[in-house]
Amino acid sequence: MTINPVEVIRRKRDGLRLSTDEIEAFVSGAATGLIPEYQTTAFLMATYFQGMVLEETTALTRAMIASGRQVKFTDSRPKIDKHSTGGVGDKVSLILAPLVAALDVDVPMVSGRGLGHTGGTLDKLESITGFRVHIKIDEFVSLIAKNGLAMMGQTADFVPADKLLYALRDVTATVECIPLITASILSKKVAEGISGLVLDIKVGSGAFMKTQKAGEKLAKSLVAVGTALGLRVRAVLTDMNQPLGLAVGHSVEVLECLETLQGRGPTDLRDITVELAAHMLVLGDKSSSIAAARAMARKSLQDGTALAKFGDMCRAQGATVNVVRNPETLLVSPHTVIVQATKTGYVSKIDGQALGTLLVRMGGGRQKTSDTIDHSVGFRLHAKLGSSIEKGKPLATIYFNPEKLRTEDLTPDAIAREFAAAFSISGTKAKASGLIKKVIE
Amino acid sequence: MTINPVEVIRRKRDGLRLSTDEIEAFVSGAATGLIPEYQTTAFLMATYFQGMVLEETTALTRAMIASGRQVKFTDSRPKIDKHSTGGVGDKVSLILAPLVAALDVDVPMVSGRGLGHTGGTLDKLESITGFRVHIKIDEFVSLIAKNGLAMMGQTADFVPADKLLYALRDVTATVECIPLITASILSKKVAEGISGLVLDIKVGSGAFMKTQKAGEKLAKSLVAVGTALGLRVRAVLTDMNQPLGLAVGHSVEVLECLETLQGRGPTDLRDITVELAAHMLVLGDKSSSIAAARAMARKSLQDGTALAKFGDMCRAQGATVNVVRNPETLLVSPHTVIVQATKTGYVSKIDGQALGTLLVRMGGGRQKTSDTIDHSVGFRLHAKLGSSIEKGKPLATIYFNPEKLRTEDLTPDAIAREFAAAFSISGTKAKASGLIKKVIE
Repeated sequence: MTINPVEVIRRKRDGLRLSTDEIEAFVSGAATGLIPEYQTTAFLMATYFQGMVLEETTALTRAMIASGRQVKFTDSRPKIDKHSTGGVGDKVSLILAPLVAALDVDVPMVSGRGLGHTGGTLDKLESITGFRVHIKIDEFVSLIAKNGLAMMGQTADFVPADKLLYALRDVTATVECIPLITASILSKKVAEGISGLVLDIKVGSGAFMKTQKAGEKLAKSLVAVGTALGLRVRAVLTDMNQPLGLAVGHSVEVLECLETLQGRGPTDLRDITVELAAHMLVLGDKSSSIAAARAMARKSLQDGTALAKFGDMCRAQGATVNVVRNPETLLVSPHTVIVQATKTGYVSKIDGQALGTLLVRMGGGRQKTSDTIDHSVGFRLHAKLGSSIEKGKPLATIYFNPEKLRTEDLTPDAIAREFAAAFSISGTKAKASGLIKKVIE
Repeated sequence: MTINPVEVIRRKRDGLRLSTDEIEAFVSGAATGLIPEYQTTAFLMATYFQGMVLEETTALTRAMIASGRQVKFTDSRPKIDKHSTGGVGDKVSLILAPLVAALDVDVPMVSGRGLGHTGGTLDKLESITGFRVHIKIDEFVSLIAKNGLAMMGQTADFVPADKLLYALRDVTATVECIPLITASILSKKVAEGISGLVLDIKVGSGAFMKTQKAGEKLAKSLVAVGTALGLRVRAVLTDMNQPLGLAVGHSVEVLECLETLQGRGPTDLRDITVELAAHMLVLGDKSSSIAAARAMARKSLQDGTALAKFGDMCRAQGATVNVVRNPETLLVSPHTVIVQATKTGYVSKIDGQALGTLLVRMGGGRQKTSDTIDHSVGFRLHAKLGSSIEKGKPLATIYFNPEKLRTEDLTPDAIAREFAAAFSISGTKAKASGLIKKVIE
């Protein structure tokens, strides 16, 4: 179909409903460069203001999928993935994928890099010496056939329309738009060739969605469009009013994953992983009840099968060290500073976004796409929301790189002060908010 | 000032008020190519939705003026211009500018080309063999010093930011936006070095502003921002529910201007010209009352001084023929078709936009920027709103180019039918709507 791009922009601007043909022609024109970027961004901004109905968002997602190559599996084993909207200390994928794969549900996971103040699975995996995230689609398929899981970065032919639209949204203030977020997430997930998807929608001060209302709106859009595209979908709204687990950074987070894969690790991290795994197992028809699925997941963490699967994946993707046996090969900076509580009381607030941003400035994240990440820097919290703490006692340990601090004009003392400022301590213990807020199917 | 363009887009998107510094930096960045077009168009669409307050529109206009070279006059003679928002058959500038200049008010007129279904002053002037509209700013200034008037096209260094923004708005459905229209019009007028401006805001079916309400909103914005920029400004809302005068096209319109410059010509064309001239004379301090100024203007049409000034301008700008003495040098196609009334009654509606669009397809306008205009084609109406007409009697004469009709797959009969379809004839005579609707100062 030939369209007049100006007319399509005008119709969206005026709040009219676009046809599937119009959306397909616009996306394919944008992806092939036939429609110039200056028209694409005007369209994105018009969509920001006018939104899209379910049928339009579904057409947009389909058109984006069609812009590239889709992963095809020939076997009949269930293929279930998880997507998180991202938060500080969210390392769940590294534990969850091997756990679920160990229970005979394939997990083909196309992951991303860190974004803004939140980290990315690919960057965390690269803390492991030799781990290759840049694999081709064919290798991805054969690794899943062999091990039941693989984690790869987006290749050039994998949903190229999303790459273009995402890059343009990032520089035109059109990121925060539910239909565009929905299409971006689901196009990549459907292109993985999965049959079911569990969404972890983070809600709270450290997440992109600050309120439960915004999170629910996104969850409903994802479930509706995912279902329209033939996926079995569930969205779990989870709390992100503080970092997940105790470790924030790259090597330190992988270390925490290894602990959790051995049945230990922080309670919140283990609980959320078990919950998401249970939904994946139900979608993969390995259990008909969430309660039974939770028990299966806990067992897999206890009996070492999840950990063994993680080791299999690392070996298969080129790791030259055995992090399971030799966790000390994960480089953590020897330069530390202890952050002390400035008063006695209970931790009442942790500004995850501030911690994420501080980590970026310490070299543990990117300020521009071309930056390289220092995997050795990070934080280990000694207190979380509700913890009682005495003045002068350690709140956290910071692992820093003195070289990077010099270029950023930061002193260890200044980081410690900034870190402490992200914690509020109050005289009364606040009621803890639940980790799992809601499930939307 | 260094700005983050994404932040400026986001703030406008969120309906926040931008500072003068932010607007200046954004416009200068866009004009110099520092800010890519894909960010500029996202900004334009955000502005379409959120609008701008007076101070923002004023800052935008100032920033656009600053992007190029401004005309500077060293003498103290009044410099007053007129701008029309454009309509079908609107040839007023060609009569008005020499008329006002003949009464000792300088008219430095930077004009445009035809746009959509409406014609442009530059294109009409080019019906006159040899007339040069592409003159440099220095020549423009010296011609005004000599004759009191000159008409030129936009040069490359004349408000380049408007050229860029206009071209981008045209292809991103962001034309219909009052702050952007205001800045586009006023930046070019202020850069002419004028002290006063009369705006002819066309309202009706043949105009860009279809309703008086929309016209008034634009008029108020233009008057407020023009005043903030130090201009004496008046806006006159005039009727555009039918073509102005009887001629529509290029050579035929110049011929009608020559008649009007001799005190004859259609009443509506003469009346509107006299009205706009009167306001220009008052702004130029040549008269303290509109009534007295009208009389001065009528006299200048009667006594031949306006016509002589038109001749001076043509000679000064390179005309190789004397159209005043030899109007037959204006080429009008000898191929004609007479449109006959399909029933008896009164003309109750004339769709000017349909006539303008038909003229474009006959070669008398551009479908794309690179098209050349056939000055010899056009229409001469024999009936206007309220005229009584008998079935079979001529409604209009169409001057066509058979060559162009062949490429457009149009027959003379088909044009005549299309033309007739733009006229409604009813049994009762409707009350005529006034030509001058409102003056806003």
